[in-house]
Amino acid sequence: MTDLKPFLSDNAAPVHPKIWAAMQAADSADNPYDGDALSAELDARFSDLFGRECAGLWVATGTAANCLALATMVQPHGAVVCHEEAHIEVDEGGAPGFYLHGAKLMLGAGEGAKLTPEGIAALIDPIRDDVHQVQPHAISITQATEYGRSYSPAELAALSEFAKARGLGLHMDGARFANAAAFLGGSAADAAHGVDSLAFGCIKNGGMSAEAVVLFDPAQADLVKYRRKRGGHLQCKGRYLAAQILAMLDGDLWLANARHANAASQEIASGCGAERLMHPVEANELFVRLTETEREALRAQKFAFYDWGEDAARFVTAWDTRAEDASALGKAIASL
Amino acid sequence: MTDLKPFLSDNAAPVHPKIWAAMQAADSADNPYDGDALSAELDARFSDLFGRECAGLWVATGTAANCLALATMVQPHGAVVCHEEAHIEVDEGGAPGFYLHGAKLMLGAGEGAKLTPEGIAALIDPIRDDVHQVQPHAISITQATEYGRSYSPAELAALSEFAKARGLGLHMDGARFANAAAFLGGSAADAAHGVDSLAFGCIKNGGMSAEAVVLFDPAQADLVKYRRKRGGHLQCKGRYLAAQILAMLDGDLWLANARHANAASQEIASGCGAERLMHPVEANELFVRLTETEREALRAQKFAFYDWGEDAARFVTAWDTRAEDASALGKAIASL
Amino acid sequence: MTDLKPFLSDNAAPVHPKIWAAMQAADSADNPYDGDALSAELDARFSDLFGRECAGLWVATGTAANCLALATMVQPHGAVVCHEEAHIEVDEGGAPGFYLHGAKLMLGAGEGAKLTPEGIAALIDPIRDDVHQVQPHAISITQATEYGRSYSPAELAALSEFAKARGLGLHMDGARFANAAAFLGGSAADAAHGVDSLAFGCIKNGGMSAEAVVLFDPAQADLVKYRRKRGGHLQCKGRYLAAQILAMLDGDLWLANARHANAASQEIASGCGAERLMHPVEANELFVRLTETEREALRAQKFAFYDWGEDAARFVTAWDTRAEDASALGKAIASL
Amino acid sequence: MTDLKPFLSDNAAPVHPKIWAAMQAADSADNPYDGDALSAELDARFSDLFGRECAGLWVATGTAANCLALATMVQPHGAVVCHEEAHIEVDEGGAPGFYLHGAKLMLGAGEGAKLTPEGIAALIDPIRDDVHQVQPHAISITQATEYGRSYSPAELAALSEFAKARGLGLHMDGARFANAAAFLGGSAADAAHGVDSLAFGCIKNGGMSAEAVVLFDPAQADLVKYRRKRGGHLQCKGRYLAAQILAMLDGDLWLANARHANAASQEIASGCGAERLMHPVEANELFVRLTETEREALRAQKFAFYDWGEDAARFVTAWDTRAEDASALGKAIASL
Repeated sequence: MTDLKPFLSDNAAPVHPKIWAAMQAADSADNPYDGDALSAELDARFSDLFGRECAGLWVATGTAANCLALATMVQPHGAVVCHEEAHIEVDEGGAPGFYLHGAKLMLGAGEGAKLTPEGIAALIDPIRDDVHQVQPHAISITQATEYGRSYSPAELAALSEFAKARGLGLHMDGARFANAAAFLGGSAADAAHGVDSLAFGCIKNGGMSAEAVVLFDPAQADLVKYRRKRGGHLQCKGRYLAAQILAMLDGDLWLANARHANAASQEIASGCGAERLMHPVEANELFVRLTETEREALRAQKFAFYDWGEDAARFVTAWDTRAEDASALGKAIASL
Repeated sequence: MTDLKPFLSDNAAPVHPKIWAAMQAADSADNPYDGDALSAELDARFSDLFGRECAGLWVATGTAANCLALATMVQPHGAVVCHEEAHIEVDEGGAPGFYLHGAKLMLGAGEGAKLTPEGIAALIDPIRDDVHQVQPHAISITQATEYGRSYSPAELAALSEFAKARGLGLHMDGARFANAAAFLGGSAADAAHGVDSLAFGCIKNGGMSAEAVVLFDPAQADLVKYRRKRGGHLQCKGRYLAAQILAMLDGDLWLANARHANAASQEIASGCGAERLMHPVEANELFVRLTETEREALRAQKFAFYDWGEDAARFVTAWDTRAEDASALGKAIASL
Repeated sequence: MTDLKPFLSDNAAPVHPKIWAAMQAADSADNPYDGDALSAELDARFSDLFGRECAGLWVATGTAANCLALATMVQPHGAVVCHEEAHIEVDEGGAPGFYLHGAKLMLGAGEGAKLTPEGIAALIDPIRDDVHQVQPHAISITQATEYGRSYSPAELAALSEFAKARGLGLHMDGARFANAAAFLGGSAADAAHGVDSLAFGCIKNGGMSAEAVVLFDPAQADLVKYRRKRGGHLQCKGRYLAAQILAMLDGDLWLANARHANAASQEIASGCGAERLMHPVEANELFVRLTETEREALRAQKFAFYDWGEDAARFVTAWDTRAEDASALGKAIASL
Repeated sequence: MTDLKPFLSDNAAPVHPKIWAAMQAADSADNPYDGDALSAELDARFSDLFGRECAGLWVATGTAANCLALATMVQPHGAVVCHEEAHIEVDEGGAPGFYLHGAKLMLGAGEGAKLTPEGIAALIDPIRDDVHQVQPHAISITQATEYGRSYSPAELAALSEFAKARGLGLHMDGARFANAAAFLGGSAADAAHGVDSLAFGCIKNGGMSAEAVVLFDPAQADLVKYRRKRGGHLQCKGRYLAAQILAMLDGDLWLANARHANAASQEIASGCGAERLMHPVEANELFVRLTETEREALRAQKFAFYDWGEDAARFVTAWDTRAEDASALGKAIASL
C-alpha cells in the first residue's frame, strides 16, 4: 500500500512511536488487571486534564467505553436520547441494548449530527409520563460528531443545563474528542463542558487498543469496574492499556496528534473549496460532494477513501497523514 | 521487583519478544476490525493446528472468549454445567450470566476441579424435564483445570460422548490450554479432543492481549462475530491481536513457552516432594501445603506467591520463569 | 358511570357473560399450570380455526403474547421491523427489549400504521450486511392496526412473500384481530394469512385476562413454554385462562363480539360523515377530526372518549357498546 | 375427581366464593390497567395490615412478584442469597436470572429450607471484595419455607439485622405467607418482621390469579411499576386482580383460609404420628416418610399426593380441604 495516499479512516492508522515506547516500558511484570502502578495514575491524570475530580478507566474499545459509561445513567427500562446518525445507534452492533439490558435508543435529528435542547425536547416532550412509554434517562452526544462537527462550550452548556433540568445524564462519545478539543482551542475542559461522562478516544489518535472511560462523578467508578469485568473487558495485563493512555496525555501528545490531523483536513478543505463541502470542517473528517466519475478520477491518482452515498465521499485524516498527501488531495479535487 | 523470585501468576508476565516483534510488524495500516490480512489467516491456521476444520477469532480476554463460545450453545433460559471451582463461576464477575442473558451455571463437583460424566449425571439427572426447572444446554470444562490438572484424551472422549448423548454442547476454557497440551505430549488435537469450542489462551503464555475463540463448527462463527461486536470486543486495530496469535502458532511458540513453564513447575515439584502437593502437577501450577510460618520463611527469601487458604500456597510458573528460581524454590520448600 | 356513553377503550369493558360462565365451569380442581384438560384443547382448537396446524398457548397480556412470539424469531443481536406507531414500540414499556434481551425495534412508516414491503425495503435495504449494524430478524404488524385499519389477505400475502424472501419471521399483533377478521369477512385464516405467529386477542373482545400465542410452526411451542415460565407468565391455575379462550372460540363468540363492536363503529362513522374521519373505519376504532370546542360539546352530552392530539378524538367501540349510544354519537357529531 | 381425597397441592384448588363474588362486583368498567378504584386501595390496605407504610401492587404470579421485588434490591452484576431448595432457584424456570438481567443466585444450606445468619455468613464471607467475584446484594427467604416451616419473629429479626449489617436487601417469598402467619399467631407484621419486600400470596390460599408485591419502602413502587409493565404483567383489566386481593384482606379471609388449611395439616400430623414426619408441621404441608408400598396403599384408598423422593410423600392441604379427608388420611397413615 506504499504508494497509496490513504484517507479511509483514522481507525486503522499505525500506532504512534511514543505509544509503542510507553507500552514497551510497561513490559516488566506488575500487578495484574488494574492493580498496576500505571492504571493507578489515571484518576489523577484525568482530574488534572479536566480541572475537576474524575475517575479514569481503560477499556479496549470505544463501544465498551460508551456502553459502560451509559450504564451509570440508564436503567434497563429507560432510554438514551442520541442522534439518529450517532455511532451508538448506527455502528455499534446493538451494544447499547446489550450493556443497558434492553434499554432503548431514542433518535433525534439535527444538522451535522448534532443534538440541540430544542431537538431533544421535541423528541421527548410528547412522551407520556406513564409506565407504558419508555422514559429517557440520559442523552448521548458525539464530540466531534459523526460529520466532523464540534460542539462549542456554549452549545455544551445549553445541553448540560437542559439535561439537568430534565433529570437526564449527559454522556459524550469522544472517539474523536482530541480533534474536537484541538479545533476548539485545546482545552479538554471546554470540549467536555458539563458532561457527566466521556469516552476519551485514543485509538483513532495514534493509540493501539486503549480508550478511557472518564467519569466526572467518581462515585460511579465502582459500578463501571464491576460492569467492565462482567463485560469481559478487564484485561489481565492492563498496564499496557494504561501505558497507552498515559503516553497520550504526556506532553499533550493527544493534542499534538489531533492538531496534525486537523491541519491536514483544513489543508484539503481549503484546497477543494467550500462549495463542495457538505459540512463545515471542525475536526479531521471531510464530506465532499463528488460524482462517481470524480471519485474514480481521484482513485486513479491513488487516493484511498470511502464513498458517502452516491454523490459524495468521506475523507479522514490522521496523526500520520502526510502533509503532501493532504495538499495533493485538495488540489486534485480542485482540478476535477 | 528485580530481586523477587516471582511465582504469583502467569497472567502478569511480560510479553514474549516474538510477540512484540509480530505486533510491530503489523504496524502498517491495513483494513480495520477483522478485515486485515492477519485476521484472515486465523481460520486456516487453527484448522491446521487441530487437524479439523474450525474457525478462529481473536478477543482480548479469556472471559470474553469463554462467554462468546458458550453463547453458541446455550439459550438464555438454559444452563451451563461447570465445576463449582471453575473460573467462569468463581472469577469472571458474572460474565456468563451477562453474555448468556441470564442463563444459569450449574455447579458440579470433582477432584482437581475436573468434571466427569458420572459427576455431571448426578447433577443433571434429578432435573425434571419440565419448564419449571432450568435445563442444561452445555458443559464447560477447563484445560488445564483450576488446580493445574489436565484432562487426558480418554477423559475428554468420555465427556464428549456423554455430552453428545445428552444433547449438550461441550466447551473448553483453555486459559492454560498450552500447558495442558504440553503436558499431554504436545498435540493440540488430543488436548481438545471432542470439544465443540475452545478458548485458546495466549495471554498467560507470553501474549499481551489476545486469546482465540476456536469453533469446531465453523458455521457458528457468524454468531460469534455479531456477539463479539455487540460485546464491544471488535477492536478496530484487530491486526495487533491477530499478530499475537499467529506469532504464538509460528514454530509452535505456544508449546515451547508452555513446556518451559511446565518444566519449571516440575522442577519445583520434584524439589519440594510429593507429600506436600495437594494436586498432581500436570501443567504450570502447584498447590503446596505450607503453614503460615513456612510461607513467611519463603517470602523472607524473596519468593512471591499467593496464599491458598490457611494452610497452603499457590505457585505459578510462566514462559519467563528462571530455571534457577524454580530450582531454588523447590529446595527452599524441601529445607523448611 | 351509568349515564355515561363510553367510547374510551375496549380494554376496560366488562367480561362477557359466556366468559364468566366458562371460568366458573372450570372451577373444580385440575392439574396445575397448563396441565389441565382445557389448556390441552388449545392446539387443536386453533388448528381448526386457522385450517393449518398450530400451537396455542395462553398468557395474561398482549404484551407478553407479542414478546414471547417474537422471541421465537429474533436473536438478541437482531431487530424487529415494526411501524413507528406500533404498540410494541410506543406502548409496551420496552417489553420487547426485555424479552428479546436487547434486540432493537426498527421503525418504519406507512399510512394508517400499516407496513408495506416497499416501506420495509426502504428501511432495511440501506443496512450494511456487516456486524457493525444490527440486522433485522423479523417483521411485526398489527391487525387491526393502531389506526383501526385492516390488512387484506392480498396485503398480507405480499408481506409474507417479502418476509420469506428476506429470511425474516412475520409476527402479527392481534390485540384486535377479531375486529379485523370480522371486517374482512369472518375468516381467521384470511386475516392471518401467511404469518408465522399471532397474538390472538381476547381481552379487548370481552375476555378478562387471557390472550393466546398462536404459533404456526408448532415446533416453536417448546421455546415459548420455557420463556413463558421464565417470564413469570405460567399461572398455576391456568385453566381459568384456557377457559376464557375456549369460550371465545365456542360458537364463534369472538366473531360475534367483534361484529357487534364493528357495527357500532360503522354506525358512528356513517353518522358523523366521511370528511371528519382521519382513517377509513375497518375495525372498532374511529379517529375523528374535532376541535376542542366540539369535543367539549360532546363531553357535555356525556360521551366519554380520549383526545387524539389537539384537533381530533379517538372513539373505541366494544362488545358491549349500546347501539343507541353509537347512533347518538354519530348524530351528535353530525350536529356539531 | 369427585371421590378423590386431594392432597396434591394448594396451587390448583378452586377459587373461594368470596373471591368470585368480589371479581364479579368489579365487572363494570373502570379505568384500565391499575388506574381503577380497587387498585388504588391496595397501598392503604397493606399499610394497615402491616402497621407500617408500604406499597401494594398486584401481579398474576408469585414468580413475577418475587422477581419484581428483587429487582428493587439487586443490580445485574450482583447476586441474591437464597436456600438451595428455594422456589426461586429450583422451580421458577430461571426467572430471577431474566428479571435481574443475569444476576446470580447464591445457594445456602439450612435445615427445613431455612436460612440463618450463620449459614449466610459461611456462604458469603469467603467472597473476595473485588470485581472478579459476584457480590451479594440481597437475601431471599421463603415464609413458610419449601418444607412447610415458618420463620419466627425472632429468627426474622436476626436475619434482618444481619442483612442490614451487610448492606443487603431482605426479600420474603410469601407464596404461603398466610399459612405461616396463621401458624405464628395471626399477625402479618410478625410474620414479615424486618423484611424489605414481600410477595404476598393469594392464589394458593383461594385466589385465582393475583399475588401482591408488598414494598416496605414505598419509594420503590415506581421501579416495580415500570418493570411490571416491561415484564408484560400490567393487565388492562387489573381491577379483577385488585378485587381478589382486597377480598382476601376483607375480614381477614386470608387468615381464615390459611387457618383452615393449617388445621387440616395438623389433623393429619397428629394422626400419622411424629416419627413419620420429616419436618415439623408449621404451615399446610407435610413431608411424610412412606415406602412405595405404603404410598400405593394410600392411593388405593383414593388419597392423591406427590411422591417426595423414593421414601416419602408430600401432602398439601388447602382452604377447601375437607376435615374428614384430613382425618381419614391421618388415620390411614397410622394404620399402615
